[in-house]
Amino acid sequence: MLKINFSDRMGELQSSTIREILKMPQTPDSVSFSAGNPSPLTFPHEDMAKIAAEIFQNDYVTALQYGITEGYEPLRAAISQRMSSKYGIGSDLDDVIVTSGGQQVIDLAIKVLVNENDTILCESPSFIGALNAFRSYNARLVGIPVDKDGMDIDSLEKALRTEPNVRLIYTIPTFHNPCGCTMSLDRRKRILELAKKYGVFILEDSPYFELRYSGEDLPTLKSMDTEGYVIFAGSFSKVIAPGIRVGFVCAHRDIVSKMTVAKQVIDVHTNLFFQILVDRYLRLGVIDGHIEKCRALYMQKRDRMLAAMDRHMAGSAAWNVPDGGLFIWAELPEGYDGLELCRRLKDRNISCVPGNTFCVDQKQVSRGFRLNFSLPSDEQIDRGIAVIGQVLSEYIRS
Amino acid sequence: MLKINFSDRMGELQSSTIREILKMPQTPDSVSFSAGNPSPLTFPHEDMAKIAAEIFQNDYVTALQYGITEGYEPLRAAISQRMSSKYGIGSDLDDVIVTSGGQQVIDLAIKVLVNENDTILCESPSFIGALNAFRSYNARLVGIPVDKDGMDIDSLEKALRTEPNVRLIYTIPTFHNPCGCTMSLDRRKRILELAKKYGVFILEDSPYFELRYSGEDLPTLKSMDTEGYVIFAGSFSKVIAPGIRVGFVCAHRDIVSKMTVAKQVIDVHTNLFFQILVDRYLRLGVIDGHIEKCRALYMQKRDRMLAAMDRHMAGSAAWNVPDGGLFIWAELPEGYDGLELCRRLKDRNISCVPGNTFCVDQKQVSRGFRLNFSLPSDEQIDRGIAVIGQVLSEYIRS
Repeated sequence: MLKINFSDRMGELQSSTIREILKMPQTPDSVSFSAGNPSPLTFPHEDMAKIAAEIFQNDYVTALQYGITEGYEPLRAAISQRMSSKYGIGSDLDDVIVTSGGQQVIDLAIKVLVNENDTILCESPSFIGALNAFRSYNARLVGIPVDKDGMDIDSLEKALRTEPNVRLIYTIPTFHNPCGCTMSLDRRKRILELAKKYGVFILEDSPYFELRYSGEDLPTLKSMDTEGYVIFAGSFSKVIAPGIRVGFVCAHRDIVSKMTVAKQVIDVHTNLFFQILVDRYLRLGVIDGHIEKCRALYMQKRDRMLAAMDRHMAGSAAWNVPDGGLFIWAELPEGYDGLELCRRLKDRNISCVPGNTFCVDQKQVSRGFRLNFSLPSDEQIDRGIAVIGQVLSEYIRS
Repeated sequence: MLKINFSDRMGELQSSTIREILKMPQTPDSVSFSAGNPSPLTFPHEDMAKIAAEIFQNDYVTALQYGITEGYEPLRAAISQRMSSKYGIGSDLDDVIVTSGGQQVIDLAIKVLVNENDTILCESPSFIGALNAFRSYNARLVGIPVDKDGMDIDSLEKALRTEPNVRLIYTIPTFHNPCGCTMSLDRRKRILELAKKYGVFILEDSPYFELRYSGEDLPTLKSMDTEGYVIFAGSFSKVIAPGIRVGFVCAHRDIVSKMTVAKQVIDVHTNLFFQILVDRYLRLGVIDGHIEKCRALYMQKRDRMLAAMDRHMAGSAAWNVPDGGLFIWAELPEGYDGLELCRRLKDRNISCVPGNTFCVDQKQVSRGFRLNFSLPSDEQIDRGIAVIGQVLSEYIRS
């Protein structure tokens, strides 16, 4: 009889609730607010198709062959150039390599910096894909509370002082997933000071930072990092397309070099054809205009969702106005459970992600639930939020 | 002052010698026998270009969006169908998911089955990308000798009996990298019996098994596996193209399910565009004919290299005739060092990979060196092998 003993690190890890929800059968009247997907309306597919045809015509020998682990050199240069000139990201200390999506930066950062049972400090709630990556390395997770200005820095400092073997601070400072909040400039300065004081690296996960719809731009942590404490995880998933799995990391060159050694034995290199395609797309010089269009679309969707929430949910839930990103975070009144709400919504063919999913302790009751506004159509937003309003008032009344 | 403490698992791991050699500057007269690359002449780029254009035309919304971690459903079905009907690979117990190249199957197998300090038994010499993957998990490696019939099964049994916490047997039974040998049918049966007897899984790494040029087909271990002890790592890198990074795993469904959870937090999913492209390519029904053409090309290259070796190296080295795959393994006489030969060759702009690179103990002196015949041109084979002959006789004479 076959007996499978899984490794300790994987024993208790379950498939992410979100991915499971994505696999729910879809009916014509169902509405998903649970994804983290960009709108397919934003995919620059016509430019991509033209570039792909050119690559097959002239450069297929390179594009289809093995490449080096660091990534396609011209793309690395193009990313460095754009991130540096536009956002001040990257210094002489730093290097950039191409990764298989932003998710791989998280995997690589843990792999090269964190031993089993070492501590990682992160916002709680936070991105489930990062939390599960940390769990898959048997790291010890300590959650830091989040408010409208981002991670609570006093709590962070206390944790840095008292928790054993802290090796990494994980944060989504700009348009947080799931909370939608953005870390204030003051807190950005303080987190950098703390990283330096305690000799701990910061993994700045920023897949959405170019998608701002209101408020003023704030510098990334990486752009204020003069000594190499910040590992910046970037992605083309939300500004070009996620299915191509092209992301990048900008970090101290010694860390990037070790990440390269790790990546070599994980997937050798990222799909080379699409590395070349993204490079050519960046060199067309149209990406800034393209991102402007994405922002206009998503701002309209955010505002439409907020207006519908005002109409249907006022009084039975509270929410923030995110200045960017893809999500609105809502909270039920004291004593109510986001998970119970999401269960009731599922019976009405509406999917949302319950707040506990994003918590370091997933058994914790969370009043929160996350709504995605980038993927659903305007009609789905209006109809879905109306149903949430009904279900909410039934739940709150009951 | 920034101080970086890397994780214990990555502390000593260095970039693979082969990858570093690939980065050597190329001159017009240099010849590389060190790669593991397929010939670009085999890339079915015209079919691929047509399919890519169709996907951009009709299916870009799916191909550019997030997909599920398991992979594109039609491709999983197409792989299962082909592997099962043509090679008897996969039973009712098993499942198939798409991976980011065959390399990722190795990463996933360790991640879900092997704890730090657990033992992995593997051929020594063996594929450096696997050995370094094992090292990157702090696994304990025990090398098993290889002869012309593959892994020495008596040594394997002894190791299974005496080594602590053996969790995995890693083998390349068909057209071994680097040795070029193929495990005999008798040994195939015995290794399966041992896996069952000791309750240990076998990772069957088979990127080349469809590339046979002589001798008779042997069943894969997976096709003889009735109880789920074999994890089959497959790849499209050598029969379609490596730059696209599409591979697959066929294994017991519980293992595949846990691998899916692991993959979710490693790279979410494999590049979806090329998953769809490979699916469409498989459905064209031309792959068997395409592989026939690859085999004809590589057989001619193998034979050309063997003929050149007969002319220039007879008496100063010994080698096998591989029945398939991409490599010829040669050995110097007693008392000579493959590493020293490769150093001397480098001065003559010829690159080969020294045998010690592939050993579990890389500090061990190896008389072997690996020659790749798939990538160099006929002219490069003739010229390069002639230079090797000269350098060899200088080295042996000195």
